Amino acid sequence: MAPLGTSNRAVVLASGGLDSTVTAALAREAGHELLWLTVDYGQRHAVEVARACQVAAAMHPAKHTVLSVNLRAVGGSALTAEFPVPKDRHSEERSRGIPITYVPGRNLIFLSLAAAHAEAEGATLIYFGANVLDYSGYPDCRPEFIRAFEAAVAAGTRAGVEGAALRVCTPLLDMTKADIIRTGVRLEAPLHLTHSCYDPVGDLACGRCDSCVIRREGFAKAGVEDPTRYAVP
Amino acid sequence: MAPLGTSNRAVVLASGGLDSTVTAALAREAGHELLWLTVDYGQRHAVEVARACQVAAAMHPAKHTVLSVNLRAVGGSALTAEFPVPKDRHSEERSRGIPITYVPGRNLIFLSLAAAHAEAEGATLIYFGANVLDYSGYPDCRPEFIRAFEAAVAAGTRAGVEGAALRVCTPLLDMTKADIIRTGVRLEAPLHLTHSCYDPVGDLACGRCDSCVIRREGFAKAGVEDPTRYAVP
Repeated sequence: MAPLGTSNRAVVLASGGLDSTVTAALAREAGHELLWLTVDYGQRHAVEVARACQVAAAMHPAKHTVLSVNLRAVGGSALTAEFPVPKDRHSEERSRGIPITYVPGRNLIFLSLAAAHAEAEGATLIYFGANVLDYSGYPDCRPEFIRAFEAAVAAGTRAGVEGAALRVCTPLLDMTKADIIRTGVRLEAPLHLTHSCYDPVGDLACGRCDSCVIRREGFAKAGVEDPTRYAVP
Repeated sequence: MAPLGTSNRAVVLASGGLDSTVTAALAREAGHELLWLTVDYGQRHAVEVARACQVAAAMHPAKHTVLSVNLRAVGGSALTAEFPVPKDRHSEERSRGIPITYVPGRNLIFLSLAAAHAEAEGATLIYFGANVLDYSGYPDCRPEFIRAFEAAVAAGTRAGVEGAALRVCTPLLDMTKADIIRTGVRLEAPLHLTHSCYDPVGDLACGRCDSCVIRREGFAKAGVEDPTRYAVP
């Protein structure tokens, strides 16, 4: 992809997970100067932030910023409040409605922070690892949300008013987890450092939450050995 | 104003400033159960957050949440980075373009946090003290931004997808500062506790930044005694 406008800079929302790491690898392949942004939002699986730093150390972005915002004070999700994380759910159960692991306004907040960072740093592109296939229930991963968010940024930022529209690039949107994993392997992304589990047990992934189940199935379907250490084999 | 949908709850973005305090007083007059949200964003004028807490103590909202997000890490503004705050500017100078005190993405981030809080708490309304008259240069106070933001929230939240649209209410949008002050006096808002200065000198307001100049002119035009203690009389 050719750089937009006069800037070759792009912000990558990098969570330390599989999807955002492969997204970052695609952004690197596209030749952008990359500004990684990791949001420490008080998530139950705080190990994510440490993993994001390890992934960054392995992939050498031009800059890596960690921003803290305590979404526990906002509440309303199993990932930030004291609701139990659902376990051992099959594909059909997972696709029923909006899961409890949905965090109110999370992607809206992440993208807003990324848009602010992009504007301050003169970037016109945000790479965002949203995906609709494996997890259709999250409203803030849908393309109609992404387009509406771009319109809000165009209307509400100096860059937007001055004509340098910010675009949100979601290269994984329609990919299966197996495709994402194969892409990561092709681009030599450090998948072994990534973290997916919503409810880790010490250093181990639980192996049973929706995110672990989807990850394990993805590696199996891709025919790639899963480097993750699970509490439940 | 009648409560929307099934909820009478409203989130108020309460900064400790004059505008948001009068906005909160209007929200109180409208009969809503109020959830105040103050964002500590690493602003140079950190006294704002303390003032927000004092104003809350005087006005008794149902709940007051202070969220921290370090926008200094984002940078790009005189309010968060080490640029000097402009002083002694006349109305004509102030209305020229977007001022350096514009914080990239600030209102987008504030509104996103408020939307998340509203969704988690079952509120369908956000009160926001944006104003376009005294300070026409901020792109993120314009009605076209507010409407675009509402559309993004409708597309990207559980509440939006399920039909409980969130509305952003900006009762001060077209009011002069003098009108805002008169409204605050009528509603017995604790204006003496509010803070406007971008660059305070110890406990005193500088009296010379754009925000101080606009505040002083507003009190003078309203014929109300300004309770603020200024470093420059």
